[in-house]
Amino acid sequence: MSLDARQIEELFHTQIPITRAMAVRVAVCDEQQLVITAPLAPNHNHLGTAFGGSLNAIATLAGYGLVWLELRDPACHVVIRESSISFLAPVRSEIRAICRRPDEATLTAFHHDFARKGKARLRLEVTIEEAGAVAVKFTGTFVALR
Amino acid sequence: MSLDARQIEELFHTQIPITRAMAVRVAVCDEQQLVITAPLAPNHNHLGTAFGGSLNAIATLAGYGLVWLELRDPACHVVIRESSISFLAPVRSEIRAICRRPDEATLTAFHHDFARKGKARLRLEVTIEEAGAVAVKFTGTFVALR
Repeated sequence: MSLDARQIEELFHTQIPITRAMAVRVAVCDEQQLVITAPLAPNHNHLGTAFGGSLNAIATLAGYGLVWLELRDPACHVVIRESSISFLAPVRSEIRAICRRPDEATLTAFHHDFARKGKARLRLEVTIEEAGAVAVKFTGTFVALR
Repeated sequence: MSLDARQIEELFHTQIPITRAMAVRVAVCDEQQLVITAPLAPNHNHLGTAFGGSLNAIATLAGYGLVWLELRDPACHVVIRESSISFLAPVRSEIRAICRRPDEATLTAFHHDFARKGKARLRLEVTIEEAGAVAVKFTGTFVALR
């Protein structure tokens, strides 16, 4: 587990306590992506598949974590402004939310806005994938504020 | 607490275990609305306000519960197909999600579809309100399947 992954996981577990009940873990944290996982057991619904509210929360954490890593500024707050989610197929085993890093032009614009105005928005896509197929598509707009 | 409220709360706590960790309660369940509440303590984020993932989950439960009450059919499954959410203001105390019953024409169409095809969709709006103001707007499309 990388230092970044450990830091993000500790941030979640200490600052957002419901992530402990959800048993959220950081599985991958590198230059390309942030991958957040959680087991089905604490997150199942009445049908024995993953609860939509847990899927949304875990996708939100993947996006939030990616913005946090991008800034690495303890004086900065990250909040979510809006999101939308489509549930394409039930998730029947481990929940695995993948937030891929946006392209360089998008990130450059984000950092530029943040440096100039102390505030910047980043629109991120997160997918929850199972057995190589996309089960959930999430798009969220995150705002960083100094 | 009405019998309906007790049933919905028990359904959540037994079938969707993360609702126990979130300390979700059914506050109001009548002909006009379903109101789901949860305390801030287990649902706070890194800023000490309500975590967006918890807000989304509790709004989802309000919509899901309303569809379940509308059908009262143990042979029927209710799932969420898609949703969108806007975070207008931070929630600083108890989370209170209100799903108001749609108008009669909408409900009649829903029941008609369900009786004819064994499948029907219902688009529901949920607001999370604090001190008389709307802090969160959620819209979800729920599907009932026999």
